[in-house]
Amino acid sequence: MTPSREQFLATRPLILGSIHRTPVLTCKSIDGMVGASLFFKCENFQKTGAFKMRGAAHAVARISESDRQKGVATHSSGNFAQSVALAAQNLGIPAYIVMPNNAPAVKKAAVIGYGAEVIECPPTIRAREETLMQVVERTGATPLHPSNDIDVILGQGTAAEELLMDEPNLDAIFVPVGGGGLLAGTALAAHYLSPETKVYAGEPMGADDAYRSLKAGEILPMENPNTIADGLRTSLGSNNFPIIQKFVTEIFRVEEEEIIHAMHMVWERMKIIIEPSCSVPLAALFKNKEQFAGKRVGIILSGGNVDLKNLPF
Amino acid sequence: MTPSREQFLATRPLILGSIHRTPVLTCKSIDGMVGASLFFKCENFQKTGAFKMRGAAHAVARISESDRQKGVATHSSGNFAQSVALAAQNLGIPAYIVMPNNAPAVKKAAVIGYGAEVIECPPTIRAREETLMQVVERTGATPLHPSNDIDVILGQGTAAEELLMDEPNLDAIFVPVGGGGLLAGTALAAHYLSPETKVYAGEPMGADDAYRSLKAGEILPMENPNTIADGLRTSLGSNNFPIIQKFVTEIFRVEEEEIIHAMHMVWERMKIIIEPSCSVPLAALFKNKEQFAGKRVGIILSGGNVDLKNLPF
Repeated sequence: MTPSREQFLATRPLILGSIHRTPVLTCKSIDGMVGASLFFKCENFQKTGAFKMRGAAHAVARISESDRQKGVATHSSGNFAQSVALAAQNLGIPAYIVMPNNAPAVKKAAVIGYGAEVIECPPTIRAREETLMQVVERTGATPLHPSNDIDVILGQGTAAEELLMDEPNLDAIFVPVGGGGLLAGTALAAHYLSPETKVYAGEPMGADDAYRSLKAGEILPMENPNTIADGLRTSLGSNNFPIIQKFVTEIFRVEEEEIIHAMHMVWERMKIIIEPSCSVPLAALFKNKEQFAGKRVGIILSGGNVDLKNLPF
Repeated sequence: MTPSREQFLATRPLILGSIHRTPVLTCKSIDGMVGASLFFKCENFQKTGAFKMRGAAHAVARISESDRQKGVATHSSGNFAQSVALAAQNLGIPAYIVMPNNAPAVKKAAVIGYGAEVIECPPTIRAREETLMQVVERTGATPLHPSNDIDVILGQGTAAEELLMDEPNLDAIFVPVGGGGLLAGTALAAHYLSPETKVYAGEPMGADDAYRSLKAGEILPMENPNTIADGLRTSLGSNNFPIIQKFVTEIFRVEEEEIIHAMHMVWERMKIIIEPSCSVPLAALFKNKEQFAGKRVGIILSGGNVDLKNLPF
């Protein structure tokens, strides 16, 4: 079930041409607030503005030559949609993106801008899944799940791999957890490349299915998630949950105002733009700073796609 | 009058311990809009959030040992105030900052946070200058001008120096022009280090004293400047004007909506925070892109200190 070390190491070479090697930034004043040395891996500077490009590029690259011509398909209203569209365009294959008919026009335009076909559907999970199935039946395209696909998980792990290249000997790495792809991938990276580095996640209190699932020992899906961190409203899946159970040390929950405070702090002190979902791990670190005093802590800044006309501060 | 090559080259070694070597970022989508290869020198990531730290650090470092104990003084409500305060704190000497009594509380707090003494005065240029003179008389502190001091000009030039280290063979460098310190320093850097690189400035139409002064061949001070680019409302001075006359190729003027559009583009596509004054050179490049088609163009992003609660978009 768990991908092997060889599988993990084979991932990054396959996507190097499709992703940015994003910088790792530091910030003295935030270090001072936490009392630790923080290293921010800036996936907000990644292509399409989020780490999702890594998993999408890898999953698309893994499709067999014979299936490639039939294309790829996914349903997403967020960062994964653009990432699959761009990854498919890079390889010159068709992409079919199912999007809810209430998705912002600017997001649809971005996906179309990457040459993908957008198929609209009613804004329910059920309609999205059914529409995706119809598209797959019609086209023969390979369906991709944004977080519960092993190739996607492996791709997301390359962010932590690069972070550990630039900053070895981290005591901890913090990431957000929504669907669980980034968290599982990061846990694999630490396990295979730096086993002494512990992996933690931040999760919104209003979408705390990962926290509760870990406690319960089984996947408890999130019903009616309620959080500003729109990328984290999804639930864990059968492929990433066992990896998370095995290799993640702890999940910390944070309140909405803590998420907004951490986001504001990064904008103000680091002069970089991160989306609310992205500030959740820093919020978790602020909240539990005693535990990490004096440590070297990596934080994966997951994305920067935020509506500049609708900020929470 | 013009500082020598030796003077220029002696500057950066003196301030290396006080400044960040800021990164140079690129952005494929903005390159596509302009039709050129742009290299953004990110002084918004500089200490205190602006290039002003370079000039302040250099001018403070040049004060003689015997005068240092009496401290430094300046009047500023903006980025120079914080920069002088931090530069003085780094050397363990007193700083006296004259600020208008309507300056935002957060700016005063930042200056005090760097250990400086804030002296308030009525919000007129005359009151500021008179109050500064009183402070200098009382304390014996060395007064520093934010843009018309040769040591400040030399310090500001180190941003372009680093940009040319990272990206040699630039066809052009664009900077904003307000008081003229950054423009004169950049012009010196190009003249001494890369004479084939031409230097251009962007200036708001509502504060176009530098444009008009260059045309007239004499300094025409700005009366009633009116622009969102609050860092560019000041006028050229007697020390930087001759350097600008000699070594700057052209000044381009831009409208307010062009400034805001360029600022928005950097936030949206590059995921970094820049202040309105900082987006003026990119606005000038957008406006004159035919002239720079296919060229390698450096842009100094001057600062990122913006009120997040009061954005123009």
